[in-house]
Amino acid sequence: MRAVRMTAWQSEPEILDVPVPEPGPGQVLIKVAGAGVCHSDLHIMDLPEGLLPYELPFTLGHEATGWIERTGPGVRDWTAGEAVAVYGAWGCGRCHRCAQGIENYCEKASQVSPSGGGLGLDGGMAEYMLVPSARFLVPLGDLDPRAAAPLTDAGLTSYHAIKRSLHRLVPGSTALVIGVGGLGHMAVELLKALSPATVIAIDVAADKLDLAKRLGADHVLPGEQGVAFQVRDLTGGRGADLVLDFVGEQQTLALAAAGAATLGEVAVVGMGGGELPVGVGRLPFACSVSMLYWGSRPELMELVTLARQRRITPRVETFPLEQAAEVYRRLREGRLTGRAVLLPHG
Amino acid sequence: MRAVRMTAWQSEPEILDVPVPEPGPGQVLIKVAGAGVCHSDLHIMDLPEGLLPYELPFTLGHEATGWIERTGPGVRDWTAGEAVAVYGAWGCGRCHRCAQGIENYCEKASQVSPSGGGLGLDGGMAEYMLVPSARFLVPLGDLDPRAAAPLTDAGLTSYHAIKRSLHRLVPGSTALVIGVGGLGHMAVELLKALSPATVIAIDVAADKLDLAKRLGADHVLPGEQGVAFQVRDLTGGRGADLVLDFVGEQQTLALAAAGAATLGEVAVVGMGGGELPVGVGRLPFACSVSMLYWGSRPELMELVTLARQRRITPRVETFPLEQAAEVYRRLREGRLTGRAVLLPHG
Amino acid sequence: MRAVRMTAWQSEPEILDVPVPEPGPGQVLIKVAGAGVCHSDLHIMDLPEGLLPYELPFTLGHEATGWIERTGPGVRDWTAGEAVAVYGAWGCGRCHRCAQGIENYCEKASQVSPSGGGLGLDGGMAEYMLVPSARFLVPLGDLDPRAAAPLTDAGLTSYHAIKRSLHRLVPGSTALVIGVGGLGHMAVELLKALSPATVIAIDVAADKLDLAKRLGADHVLPGEQGVAFQVRDLTGGRGADLVLDFVGEQQTLALAAAGAATLGEVAVVGMGGGELPVGVGRLPFACSVSMLYWGSRPELMELVTLARQRRITPRVETFPLEQAAEVYRRLREGRLTGRAVLLPHG
Amino acid sequence: MRAVRMTAWQSEPEILDVPVPEPGPGQVLIKVAGAGVCHSDLHIMDLPEGLLPYELPFTLGHEATGWIERTGPGVRDWTAGEAVAVYGAWGCGRCHRCAQGIENYCEKASQVSPSGGGLGLDGGMAEYMLVPSARFLVPLGDLDPRAAAPLTDAGLTSYHAIKRSLHRLVPGSTALVIGVGGLGHMAVELLKALSPATVIAIDVAADKLDLAKRLGADHVLPGEQGVAFQVRDLTGGRGADLVLDFVGEQQTLALAAAGAATLGEVAVVGMGGGELPVGVGRLPFACSVSMLYWGSRPELMELVTLARQRRITPRVETFPLEQAAEVYRRLREGRLTGRAVLLPHG
Repeated sequence: MRAVRMTAWQSEPEILDVPVPEPGPGQVLIKVAGAGVCHSDLHIMDLPEGLLPYELPFTLGHEATGWIERTGPGVRDWTAGEAVAVYGAWGCGRCHRCAQGIENYCEKASQVSPSGGGLGLDGGMAEYMLVPSARFLVPLGDLDPRAAAPLTDAGLTSYHAIKRSLHRLVPGSTALVIGVGGLGHMAVELLKALSPATVIAIDVAADKLDLAKRLGADHVLPGEQGVAFQVRDLTGGRGADLVLDFVGEQQTLALAAAGAATLGEVAVVGMGGGELPVGVGRLPFACSVSMLYWGSRPELMELVTLARQRRITPRVETFPLEQAAEVYRRLREGRLTGRAVLLPHG
Repeated sequence: MRAVRMTAWQSEPEILDVPVPEPGPGQVLIKVAGAGVCHSDLHIMDLPEGLLPYELPFTLGHEATGWIERTGPGVRDWTAGEAVAVYGAWGCGRCHRCAQGIENYCEKASQVSPSGGGLGLDGGMAEYMLVPSARFLVPLGDLDPRAAAPLTDAGLTSYHAIKRSLHRLVPGSTALVIGVGGLGHMAVELLKALSPATVIAIDVAADKLDLAKRLGADHVLPGEQGVAFQVRDLTGGRGADLVLDFVGEQQTLALAAAGAATLGEVAVVGMGGGELPVGVGRLPFACSVSMLYWGSRPELMELVTLARQRRITPRVETFPLEQAAEVYRRLREGRLTGRAVLLPHG
Repeated sequence: MRAVRMTAWQSEPEILDVPVPEPGPGQVLIKVAGAGVCHSDLHIMDLPEGLLPYELPFTLGHEATGWIERTGPGVRDWTAGEAVAVYGAWGCGRCHRCAQGIENYCEKASQVSPSGGGLGLDGGMAEYMLVPSARFLVPLGDLDPRAAAPLTDAGLTSYHAIKRSLHRLVPGSTALVIGVGGLGHMAVELLKALSPATVIAIDVAADKLDLAKRLGADHVLPGEQGVAFQVRDLTGGRGADLVLDFVGEQQTLALAAAGAATLGEVAVVGMGGGELPVGVGRLPFACSVSMLYWGSRPELMELVTLARQRRITPRVETFPLEQAAEVYRRLREGRLTGRAVLLPHG
Repeated sequence: MRAVRMTAWQSEPEILDVPVPEPGPGQVLIKVAGAGVCHSDLHIMDLPEGLLPYELPFTLGHEATGWIERTGPGVRDWTAGEAVAVYGAWGCGRCHRCAQGIENYCEKASQVSPSGGGLGLDGGMAEYMLVPSARFLVPLGDLDPRAAAPLTDAGLTSYHAIKRSLHRLVPGSTALVIGVGGLGHMAVELLKALSPATVIAIDVAADKLDLAKRLGADHVLPGEQGVAFQVRDLTGGRGADLVLDFVGEQQTLALAAAGAATLGEVAVVGMGGGELPVGVGRLPFACSVSMLYWGSRPELMELVTLARQRRITPRVETFPLEQAAEVYRRLREGRLTGRAVLLPHG
């Protein structure tokens, strides 16, 4: 089968032929429907050897959906052909957090590596994908799995960042979304579906602000000098109770701190390499700052339910698997709106 | 000034002339805009002497809004003419719960009586109302206080019952509203504004189900034999994660228990005199049952904010103060839709 | 191997010889160290045919610990000889609750039956026990598994009932434990280890009150006429913020309702067949009543950690497997203190 | 009466004679029992003019207890001679947070200044203190108010930092206390009283580590090079689930970040002027960092209850009011253990 493979560090992936894997006990083989194209893949490609604990080669694609193809011994209650999302943060399955489905923060994470399909293990940018445990599957019901792929990362990461702060989003509260890309556009839609918060979206691109507006943002602001003051104005001086920074650069983090409220939350999701200094005068009192990673298995289930109820719909652009290189190029240049998905079977 | 006064037990109130009160230290005099007409007033009228710790006579009206008329010594930061809602559950102000604004569950409640304006003390069915502390006032901003009166009881009681269970209303969850009257119709609207839960509304009256539908209920069901099975069907057998019973009669409580999910919540708001027996086979495991009373001061603030943002709008029918007797009669006969409000100043 | 088997309804179990099972894919064979003797076994023995969805015969023992004997294909990360506790509420493993480890409230519970080892499937009262998935194992570290058996049911059920209400147990709060038997004595110890609440324990037997006192109860009261008034007195009239009823008879439930506080919680754990009617005047406002069942997998992990840190220690009396009949007899007659545990291997 | 007054910026306070104030409507006059001596007073003394929105002169002392001397018009339910603690964070009393008693994060904080007695308004380092509203009083019962003064700031600030993270302190968790001074020593005692967490205390002074040990710390570590590795070792590599930094210098903040766990919390309480940069590789994922300020009114009530139950006891050294200058000198030089309290009436 064809697969988009990382074969060397600091280089582009190649499309190669590899054998279809066979599921062992407890494992499941998925016929891949869609594999999302993610910024973090670009980070992986750019890294020099030795920084990540991954052995080459491996197939990219940590955001995948498909149909059950074949189950290994001991797997029950799944039928061939069923449409599924693949939960991508593969934890140890044994620790206190994995027991709660919080495998994205597995306590053995530093000892268990690589950490998932497409992240050191073979991922979803191939005709078939081996999932090491049936617990990583979430039924998609009547959703088209081709369009649903972004739920498993872009959607889940946004959902996680919002879900843990829902208690802050009481009537009168404000949520600020910085960066309306693959993740941010889903955050806007999710915030409107889940809370009564006023949603402000900021981006440097006009078409992304348009998308935010269509998805329900109450206010959209171009990301220019002085935008933090506009956030203060729109919130009566209070600032935003939840700030989601999907960029994570020095500038957006400064905006996040300047736009946040006392008792608020700044969730940094984008890995843009910036730093936010916490100290007197740098941040309102009792405002929490943290860097988040992906989401939990139960959260993916909840998100899939929202999508099955048509309360949210990821915006996707689809491409044949063969165009992987071209799609990554457009992603790097910021020439994609919503999320790009590769379709190994069309 | 004219006032609707309880002068004897087990009888109708009378419209009488009483002096306008003068605010003492910390107190505020309100020019009443609207006073809501509530089922619990009927209970008060029907009771024999001695059951409630109230001394006669007193003015009815525990759901009131108005404009600041005059403030007593020591009251700062309120200006004459400002539109306000009056929080009605007047607690001791000193206990651990009152310190959190949870005056509806004041720890001294059994020792502090009467418990509020219209509930043993002079209430809002008069031209002016004395509010014993400025802490009971919530600014209404640009809301018309005549239409906003139901926020302070019908709305607040519904909001409280929903707010405390919001963590249960994750994607895929269901909320069941039993009884779409003055409170229930606001609960439907609030559930849609605050959560992604699927909302099912049940009532015996077709016009009330129509109202529920217009306010966003996903399903409406006539309250007849076997309706619990329909709830089970609509929830894939799981039952509702939150059941709000605004009636509280034997039959609706049985429906509440039959329609609830494991780990769910049955909140009994209506004081219909029924009983729900908790025991093996009577209720799903870990489903909590409780009887609620009104809401807290911070909750009223949040609710007023929702209304000021036009995310909810109580459905009201307004009447001159003089028609109080007629309005109570229609309430008793179930011939009101939404909430009836008396307007002492038109 | 020898096993304590239910072979007929409404009769005592028999000790029989059965083959040692072989673990299939994902399964684990345990050499049993200890199997706790539980009141609910008596309920099972007493039931007429058809009430439980269990097929006979099966081995009793839903509270078990042991050592890893052999693992089936696909099971990794467990080594032979490791001491483990067996989580007993075997859910579907697929639903939203099982994904969080809350298998005791599995959404498929009514469709998946029998529900665990010793509960329709072969349990721990045998030399070896087949555990259907490695996810049901919790490492015991240096704890003696013979003494640790009660953690998995008596301890876990108590821990669950307390953990979910910890937020109520702020300084100044009170927890009331009704019934200081196999579960209740652990509840007393747990409450003192986990919270600053004042703990009141009630039982009819003086030796059980002595045990409660030794385990840290602040007050112990004999369960006689008027004891609810003593609870009110000890709490300054407020009542208990958490009431744990480990008996569940009509009388103890009435005591639970009479002893509870506004905004409190009555958790019914004992299946004594009583009923608690919720209605006006029956229960303080906003006091939640629910019937609980066992605990979750993460909760068992937390509890085992507490025991490994020697913050709690179940009180056990141990017996050879052969004395099962005699031990059940003593349990039925109330002639056991703490928890009885059968030791298949001495 | 004598009072310790700030009369000029960047200078020591003076003991002067001022008139005893008279309580207006809603106000209360307190005869001061004890006034705690706090590090933040040193910050105030050191600041140049214009940095704080305070007008000179004013009396110091934001940590005070006393007896009711006289109440203004409209104050009910307080009797002369009653021992009380004075809640020190005086908010607007009107906003959503003040309505919940969270006056330390009053939404009008930047508009309402000065912010409390001893903080721009006359505080407790005097024979009498005017409290602007009875809502700021908490009854001390049979506690000696001289010894109880530290509850209102040193204790409350610690309690607040712990209370908001109690849900993280499950069995098996670790709390790390950095700096065992006036606040830190109370944090150690509170952590043991409120949670089953393992408590690690770090300080540079051996006598403070001894105190921590006596108050129940499970491990004490001298604050030297490499101590973060020891924290990792003691937690099996996980790090601490809650880190309380009572110093807030660059070095302690670095230790806080290095010692924290994924999903953990770093609460910065000390205003030592350091900064903690949040960014990739700087902090574990989902670990929240925030800077806290004091505590809420309900929290002070809970803390006073703990002290009244003798579950905690602040360690105090008492001095006559006249020795204020000398005590501040010793504080500045680190020559105090526990908390110093001035006694205006001996």
